[in-house]
Amino acid sequence: RGWIHKYQYIFMKWSLCFLVGLFAGLVGFFNNLSIENIAGIKFVTTSNMMLAHKYGQAFGVFAVSNFVLTLFSSAITAYVAPAAAGSGIPEVKAYLNGVDAPGIFSLRTLLVKIVGSICAVSSSLHVGKAGPLVHTGACIAAVLGQGGSKKHGLTCRWLRYFKNDRDRRDLVTCGSAAGIAAAFRAPVGGVLFALEEVSSWWRSTLLWRAFFTTAVVAVVLRGLIDILILLGVFGGILGSFYNFLLMKVLRFYNFIYRKGTVYKLVLACLVSVFTSCCLFGLPWLAPCRPCPIEALEECPTIGRSGNYKKFQCTPGHYNDLASLFFNTNDDAIRNLFSSGTNNEFDYLSILLFFFTSYFLGILSYGIVAPCGLFVPVILTGATYGRFVGMLVGTKSNLDHGLFAVLGSAAFLAGSMRMTVSLCVILLELTNNLLLLPLVMLVLLISKTVADCFNGNIYDQLVRMKGLPYLEAHAEPYMRQLAVSDVITGPLQFFNGVEQVGNIVHVLKTTRHHGFPVIDEPPFSDSPVLFGLVLRSHLLVLLKKKIFLHSRTLAGIDALNQFTANDFAKRGSGKGDSIDDIELTYDEMGMFIDLHPISNASPYTVVETMSLAKALILFREVGLRHLLVVPKSSNREPVVGILTRHDFMPEHILGLHPFLLRSRWK
Amino acid sequence: RGWIHKYQYIFMKWSLCFLVGLFAGLVGFFNNLSIENIAGIKFVTTSNMMLAHKYGQAFGVFAVSNFVLTLFSSAITAYVAPAAAGSGIPEVKAYLNGVDAPGIFSLRTLLVKIVGSICAVSSSLHVGKAGPLVHTGACIAAVLGQGGSKKHGLTCRWLRYFKNDRDRRDLVTCGSAAGIAAAFRAPVGGVLFALEEVSSWWRSTLLWRAFFTTAVVAVVLRGLIDILILLGVFGGILGSFYNFLLMKVLRFYNFIYRKGTVYKLVLACLVSVFTSCCLFGLPWLAPCRPCPIEALEECPTIGRSGNYKKFQCTPGHYNDLASLFFNTNDDAIRNLFSSGTNNEFDYLSILLFFFTSYFLGILSYGIVAPCGLFVPVILTGATYGRFVGMLVGTKSNLDHGLFAVLGSAAFLAGSMRMTVSLCVILLELTNNLLLLPLVMLVLLISKTVADCFNGNIYDQLVRMKGLPYLEAHAEPYMRQLAVSDVITGPLQFFNGVEQVGNIVHVLKTTRHHGFPVIDEPPFSDSPVLFGLVLRSHLLVLLKKKIFLHSRTLAGIDALNQFTANDFAKRGSGKGDSIDDIELTYDEMGMFIDLHPISNASPYTVVETMSLAKALILFREVGLRHLLVVPKSSNREPVVGILTRHDFMPEHILGLHPFLLRSRWK
Repeated sequence: RGWIHKYQYIFMKWSLCFLVGLFAGLVGFFNNLSIENIAGIKFVTTSNMMLAHKYGQAFGVFAVSNFVLTLFSSAITAYVAPAAAGSGIPEVKAYLNGVDAPGIFSLRTLLVKIVGSICAVSSSLHVGKAGPLVHTGACIAAVLGQGGSKKHGLTCRWLRYFKNDRDRRDLVTCGSAAGIAAAFRAPVGGVLFALEEVSSWWRSTLLWRAFFTTAVVAVVLRGLIDILILLGVFGGILGSFYNFLLMKVLRFYNFIYRKGTVYKLVLACLVSVFTSCCLFGLPWLAPCRPCPIEALEECPTIGRSGNYKKFQCTPGHYNDLASLFFNTNDDAIRNLFSSGTNNEFDYLSILLFFFTSYFLGILSYGIVAPCGLFVPVILTGATYGRFVGMLVGTKSNLDHGLFAVLGSAAFLAGSMRMTVSLCVILLELTNNLLLLPLVMLVLLISKTVADCFNGNIYDQLVRMKGLPYLEAHAEPYMRQLAVSDVITGPLQFFNGVEQVGNIVHVLKTTRHHGFPVIDEPPFSDSPVLFGLVLRSHLLVLLKKKIFLHSRTLAGIDALNQFTANDFAKRGSGKGDSIDDIELTYDEMGMFIDLHPISNASPYTVVETMSLAKALILFREVGLRHLLVVPKSSNREPVVGILTRHDFMPEHILGLHPFLLRSRWK
Repeated sequence: RGWIHKYQYIFMKWSLCFLVGLFAGLVGFFNNLSIENIAGIKFVTTSNMMLAHKYGQAFGVFAVSNFVLTLFSSAITAYVAPAAAGSGIPEVKAYLNGVDAPGIFSLRTLLVKIVGSICAVSSSLHVGKAGPLVHTGACIAAVLGQGGSKKHGLTCRWLRYFKNDRDRRDLVTCGSAAGIAAAFRAPVGGVLFALEEVSSWWRSTLLWRAFFTTAVVAVVLRGLIDILILLGVFGGILGSFYNFLLMKVLRFYNFIYRKGTVYKLVLACLVSVFTSCCLFGLPWLAPCRPCPIEALEECPTIGRSGNYKKFQCTPGHYNDLASLFFNTNDDAIRNLFSSGTNNEFDYLSILLFFFTSYFLGILSYGIVAPCGLFVPVILTGATYGRFVGMLVGTKSNLDHGLFAVLGSAAFLAGSMRMTVSLCVILLELTNNLLLLPLVMLVLLISKTVADCFNGNIYDQLVRMKGLPYLEAHAEPYMRQLAVSDVITGPLQFFNGVEQVGNIVHVLKTTRHHGFPVIDEPPFSDSPVLFGLVLRSHLLVLLKKKIFLHSRTLAGIDALNQFTANDFAKRGSGKGDSIDDIELTYDEMGMFIDLHPISNASPYTVVETMSLAKALILFREVGLRHLLVVPKSSNREPVVGILTRHDFMPEHILGLHPFLLRSRWK
């Protein structure tokens, strides 16, 4: 590779990052604008009808528009791009850990995700937009990285450098950071979120511990300990219970979803109708309250946002529940976070909204449209915080708006278990640095409490989706096992110069992605491990049909018939298949020299290596295949090959059931 | 290990972190208080004398007090704890990368660091307190982790869990985060600093790239591009030139230091006198300016801090240079950052202060007292920013105080090359979130420009100190080498059951820290690698003198004569030496079974493995020893052992000089 290539690479790398940022920013802007407009028109229309006392008609318009939006969003998701459902963060997370789920980063998914998310959020569904924006950002990055769509001719020669796992993963990490940045206008928080939550090559335990230490410093320097402990403890309990319920509901939904796509749509519509009813119906339960004299804004507000919604009340009065329910989620959060509004809400209203918000969030996440968890959790948490603030009353000199922020922090930490990134995100959201030590303290307590009950919601989602996620830490029982204890099945390997028919047979009968290459006499004195060959590279060779007539070495110029582009990693889901390759009987008898296309430096472990240590090597170095070599020298040179699946607890415990009782938790 | 042990461990882990945070916070508080008081008394006294027109006497008091403080600080550093000199960040960084420099974390270093830093900063030397506080925090962590001092009986049985590299490193990382947090009252920034700058197990290129992407998002969302590009470019140039000059000066200082400790003190004193002269002398060059009518504070200020220093001026006037020079660094920074003071400074004054500050910073860092780089760089950068702000004048509607913040960001990024952590630190310093996108933009430009010239100042310092720092990325020429190309010298190994005399001989004649253990007949059919044994564990065995009379296996209960504490890692610099162990001739002829104390799962690579890939394994998994096994099976089972030194460019290029021209840069 010359200098030109290097500069091309560097130039492309930065340009791609720039483009990812640009597009993610634009999408975020477009997203906000669309949601504000669609929801705005809806609320203005409805409010005008209510001014004219046409309550039934108002509900009709409200419910129908919500219903249509939800249906549209669900339909395009279910039929056009099923991978766009949900928040998408678990998929991105699993991808960055090395798991390629099909179709998660296609152009189609991207478009559906954007449109679907806008519709879902503007339909007053209790779902957020942050998660979808993370996925959108990651999608943009992946699509750009693989050069648009090959099918539509939108590709570029320079992009060949990015046809490998590492560069693509880096780009996707940037994309997900851009997503959070666009969602919250919190750039630093976005970066931290991507590194802490999404990306795998990072030790989060250490981060969390350092966070603890600095939180202590912050608390020492400020000397503040308050009602916050209570807030944190209950926030943690509520958050982990939220996770628990959410998983139960999702399992139930999955059970329904197995019956067919139509059921997915029906469920989405049901949730939409139920949400509309709650949002429109519950405010009627609240009594009208007279407008406060000291109010800083118009009261009552008619139309779009505003702290004091008129709803059905007479002039000079407002409906406090409507101010929460009958608003976009963002406006409701702004409302709860607003300061100087300590007497705005009634105890009963807040409590009612809290429970509705809590359970609506749980019911809504699992539907087939793209939906995030962030905003609902923030909203529910803010309500919780307000309620605590009202209970404490005048005993604390903190404004109830600040209590709402702290409540959000507590509930977020209880559910998502992040620390630094949450902290910075809330900081950038509220623009109030003085709150930082309090937020840190609440986060710490809440996360600690919640960790006693169950795990991070994203980890639980990854596990439920059956993605083989490699944990950062080995489970204790892995220390009791050697690598040889988990190797299963007969090992498939190739000779350095192998017969075509044999390769085709092995590729057809197994689904492995990597095979050891072993040199045998006459190419070496005794059988010796040469390297590792990938299925995808074998397929390229078979497709080109450049075979040898006898068992000889092909020489170094054999590779000249290929370009680097031939071996570039294909976009997801576009790999060749062995069934597409037709070979004659004569060709089957010919030979291929595998030496030039083998990786001659594969990582290896000795068969007696502790499984826990092999896992560390596998995870830290970011491998896909790990070769196992024998301890004594009088056996075949490779005894097995470890992949990600061999490290999964299910696999190991299936082989060694007696270890089940020594499992951690 | 039972449940009790686990809970003990977890309890200890959190308690230690808590204590580290607590102590670091207290030290930070104490530090600030002392500096404010010492410097305060100094400035009040001097100002009072100047009020009485006793200028000569004022200078005398000022210079002498500075001189005494500097001398004291340097003397205790040079004589009591030489490891406390400098900022300490490079040492901490190298430690976390796996390099144990002697004495850097002793109780003595800690105390000298605290006292020395207070004296150095209060003596008006142009040095900062952040770097020393990072080292202080790390020291606190290390000292607590190794259980206080064994000599003074201040230890605890439970601490045995922390007598290993990993836990101690984690703790030290927390400590350094606490240090920054204490220095700037910036907890999040502290965490990020520790992870980004200090700790090694972290991919900073990716961080930086994600930062770029989110900065683009931030800029897109705000639509702001300004004079900032200019500010960033020149900041980068100034910063990298700063690094260049600093390294030259340090090399010159090191040349002087080789002549003896007295020279160190002389140099420190010279710098102190020179600083005093500059600080007291240069303000006389500035003309007195009339107090502005719209001033928000008292003008002129007499005594401690304040924007408008009276110095020698008549009532109603102030000396703008004195406001910068004749102040603590912190007050000068606050002064420069203050808003609404656009007309406070004269062009000439700012320019003069900038150059003085720039070169004083370079001259002061290398002296033997504990001194940080952060505060001087921020101060110089703030002056630079103010100057640019004044040049731009009314063309921009930005306050000059904000220009000062941006200037600091540019200069910091040009010198230290950090991104996210700097950003958050500046955020927490200025409490102005609206500035964030501008700061990010400036940081990006400045770092990019500066990276064209030279590297991060801390990396350069690490290299100059000769610490074997493992870079995150392999240099390109490593791809051309196999592991076997860098193995040198005869391999020392032990048999599974080895004669005492042989062990003693090998330990005395080599300085290796790990040795392969090889089983030979009759313990196995053919020579086979069993594991790796550490020098420190061999010494424990030799000390206890539990030997076998013949070449037999000792059995599993041989280890019962030892407790885990015997094998615990000693505090730094407290290891046993082979020379302390006296053995009789009879004992020399006896045997030891090495199997129970060997690590039976060492990481291995095949000798044909690419050196670059071996480096990745070594660095990512965090190894100290990496065994090299042969490719073909008819040779001895281990052909070499790789340590950190084998991966150093100097070593490799020494063996293969022809690679020199293909070196990166």
